This record gives sequence, structure tokens and C-alpha cells, in this order.
Amino acid sequence: MIERIAILGTGLLGTSVGLALRAAAFRGAIVGWNRSPEGAQLALQMGAIDSIAADPLQAARASQVTLLAVPIYASLDFMEKLACVLGSDHLVTDVGSTKRVICEAASRLFNTPERAAFLPGHPMAGKERGGAALGDAALFRGTVWLFTDDPECNRSAHSAELVKGWREWVVAMGSKTLDLDPVRHDELVAWVSHLPQFLATALSALLQEEVGDAPELKDVGGRALREMTRLGSSPYSMWRDIAYTNTEAVQAALLALEQRLAHLRENLRTPELRDEFEKANRFRQE
Amino acid sequence: MIERIAILGTGLLGTSVGLALRAAAFRGAIVGWNRSPEGAQLALQMGAIDSIAADPLQAARASQVTLLAVPIYASLDFMEKLACVLGSDHLVTDVGSTKRVICEAASRLFNTPERAAFLPGHPMAGKERGGAALGDAALFRGTVWLFTDDPECNRSAHSAELVKGWREWVVAMGSKTLDLDPVRHDELVAWVSHLPQFLATALSALLQEEVGDAPELKDVGGRALREMTRLGSSPYSMWRDIAYTNTEAVQAALLALEQRLAHLRENLRTPELRDEFEKANRFRQE
Repeated sequence: MIERIAILGTGLLGTSVGLALRAAAFRGAIVGWNRSPEGAQLALQMGAIDSIAADPLQAARASQVTLLAVPIYASLDFMEKLACVLGSDHLVTDVGSTKRVICEAASRLFNTPERAAFLPGHPMAGKERGGAALGDAALFRGTVWLFTDDPECNRSAHSAELVKGWREWVVAMGSKTLDLDPVRHDELVAWVSHLPQFLATALSALLQEEVGDAPELKDVGGRALREMTRLGSSPYSMWRDIAYTNTEAVQAALLALEQRLAHLRENLRTPELRDEFEKANRFRQE
Repeated sequence: MIERIAILGTGLLGTSVGLALRAAAFRGAIVGWNRSPEGAQLALQMGAIDSIAADPLQAARASQVTLLAVPIYASLDFMEKLACVLGSDHLVTDVGSTKRVICEAASRLFNTPERAAFLPGHPMAGKERGGAALGDAALFRGTVWLFTDDPECNRSAHSAELVKGWREWVVAMGSKTLDLDPVRHDELVAWVSHLPQFLATALSALLQEEVGDAPELKDVGGRALREMTRLGSSPYSMWRDIAYTNTEAVQAALLALEQRLAHLRENLRTPELRDEFEKANRFRQE
């Protein structure tokens, strides 16, 4: 039923969605747009999109489904503009890492019988570096794609069908879907996604100061150190909007970890250390 | 020249050394001993050792090189006992993760012309779980094997030859060797090895409390969360002695990380966050 998809933003996620749709035998048209023309050109060469749109809003109007695969504030800008040009035969969905702010805009701008539908989405997949060149048809295989849809919203029958259709394509791309309330979503990802990222950034920055002037010493840490700092490669440009739109939940998670580290530091020679290791072991076993 | 090696402790490291020696075409005898007979039996079945010693001290006496592959305090116990039964035609070496305490005992008990040599070693290789069953001939390939030998010590010519011979086998097993002062060693590994471990333990224990009752939510974190918590599986039994014998350096590293996390938490919406990401990026690039 979905025959034309517009991907706005052909970075890592946008390009991977195009490739994954093709791998899942999507036969319709995929038009792409990217802020830098090089990224769109690369996605085209890789077969993630069939054509490059000159105007993202026109491309969205000409498509049934528009995927926003840009940073969160860029998505919010697009949402304002798209709400004016799309109607009840359109669906807009996104891949943003925080959902409260996106869902507030969606309630205000979309999801009435006369307007386009907006389905807030968040694939829990990525790499520590972005860009079309790393696009991967298998990126979503075995991962969870979260949705934070409003179960009360009153959509046109047509756009409700598009929502159903898009969810089916997400499953076809290899993801398991999970529905969450947007506030609960932002709290949860603060723990299981944003905390690991900011922690890896802090650890990498600290080690850069402590041992960064002796590159041969980095080898000493081996696999464990490489894994614990891999996310240190993540770009600020990707995480700035996340820090801005989920500040309180991330702060709470960071503070809890600081306290946990202090507790461990004060108990390196007491039986409390055993309890901490045993609790950590349980997290990994379950 | 080395024709008989005793491996005391056939856990992950001891078993892997046996397998790696065989893979590097060591043709001499390898006798093994383990506190639990099952571990020794498994190492024997895997071909890491040729025979099981009933008495570890006798096995050491009958060998030219004895490898201590047990926790640090167990190594210290063995050092006291071995010093009484070995002589200038013997070498003892170890794989312990902290070296200051081991080197103090080595100076007191070994490394005179009449006594056995002791070469303090630390292969920067391991897995998050121990045991002979995970033994791996390739465990040391591409890794760094640290030594914290005393360049001033006055050994017999014979035991000095054994030291040279063991260093060659370490290279043959695939490791690059690096020599460090023991105090500098303990400080360095506090940053690049012990801090990542205690951090993974604290993060895993915290997440066990926060999301441990909803196992489906762990999937949400994906690869990043799995990597950042992999070391959470490490057993207390392996890390207790490390926490005890490198307490001050580990405390300093943990405190520095706590302060770094607090700085990041207070700057989630300021340009300082950009600086922190850029510093982390540099650590990964070099």
C-alpha cells in the first residue's frame, strides 16, 4: 500500500532505512533529501534512494510516508513546515532519540482527521560515527524499534492505514517493535542509552588527559578499554539535541552513577565490594 | 633451553598460556596444578598441560620455569613457599594484575645469585569470565605483556638465561612486551584497566536496580549497553585482590571520573559539552 517514501536526512540512519527497505523487498519509490548534497549523492550511489529531491517539502507532499532522519531540533523545524503542506493522506515518522518534545509537537501539529498522521519512532540502532557511507541494510536486524504513539489520537482512516503499513515495514527491516509512553521512553533511554554514551564520553575525555600523550599506553588497556571508550567517538552534533531535550532524566542518571562510583570507591576493601560485583553479575546473567 | 614448565593455576590465563605455548611449538613438558582438581582435569583434556601435579612445590622444583596464574594473594603465598625450595637454576614468573606488592616480595625472596629468579609479568589479556573452559591459544595475540622487572637485581647467569628465554616465549605467544617500573605500572593500569572494570561493575549494578526487573528493557540498549556492561560479568574473586593491592591508585582514578561526570552533568546545555565530546573524540582518533 505504501508506494512512495521520502527520507529527509540521508545520514547513517536515513541511508540504512533505505537500504533495509530494499533488502526487505520494498518495491515502491524512495526519494531522498540531505542538507549536504554529498550525503544525498552517496545514498543514491549506494542504492538507498532512487532520486534526490530538490525541495524536501515537495518530496514529502508527493510521498505517502516521510521519514525524518535528522537531529531532533531539525525534525521539529520540519514538523512545523510539513504540517502546513501535508494532509490526511500523509504519514510523517521520525527516528529521534528523545520523544517527549517530538510528541508535544506532534499533538499540536498532526494527528487530527484533517491533518497528516505523525508516528514518533526511535530505532535503538546506530554506530559511533554517522554518515551515509556507514549505511547498512542490516543495521536494524535484531534490534528494538520504539514507538511512543498517542493511543487516543483521532486520525483519518487513510493515515491510520499508513501507520499500520509503516509498522509492518519496520518489522520487515528486522526490528522488534515496543510501544512506550513518551515520558517513560525518555526516562528509560536516559538509563540504557544516554547514560552509557555520556559515560563513555567522560571516560574517554579523562583518559585523553591522563594517558593521551603516550599513545603506546592505550594498547595496554586492550579490548576492555576499546569497548568502554568506543562511544567516545560519537559526535557532539548528534548528542547536543539529546542533551537539550532530555536534560533532567540524563542528569538524574549521571548523579546516580556518581554516587554509585563513590560508594564503590569507599568500599574497595570491604564486603560491600562483593555485593556490588554480585549485583552487576545478576544484571548480565538475566 | 626451557624444557619443563609448571603452570600453577589452570584457570583462564594458565590454561591459555599452556595452549599458546603449544601453538607456538613449545616441545617441552608442561605440568599443571589447580586448587580445584576439575580445573586441572579440564586443562589436561584440552591439551594445555601434559600432566597434573599432585604437589605444586615438587612440580616447581622439577621444572625450570614456574608460572603463577592464581590471584595475587595466592601468588604471594606461593612465593614464600617456592623461595625455600627453589634455587639459582629456577625462574618463577606470574600474571598478576598489580605489581607493586609482588615486586616487593620478589626483592625480599628472589633474585640473588643463590636464589631463584622472579620475573614479574602481567599479560593485558583476559575475558570477563574465568575458568579453564574458556582457555584460548590466541588469547595473547596482538596484546601487550607487561614486565616490571628490577634492572638492578643480581641473578645467577643460569636464571638470567631463563628470564631471557621466557621473554622469548611470551613474544612467540603473540604478545608485544613492555617494561615498566612497578609503581608506574600500578598507576597506569588503574587508569586503563581497573577503572574500566570498576566502572562497568558500578554501571551494571546500578542498572540492575533501575531496570533489572524488566528484562525486556535491556534489549532496548542494544550493542552499546552490552559493551559498556560486558565487564559487569567479571567475578569478585578475581578483582578483590586487585582492589586490595592497588587501592590508592584505583581510588584516585574513580574520584577523577566522578568529578568528570559531575562536570558533564552540570554542562549538558553549555558549550563545555562540545569540548568534552571533542576531547573524547581525540582519545579515540590517536
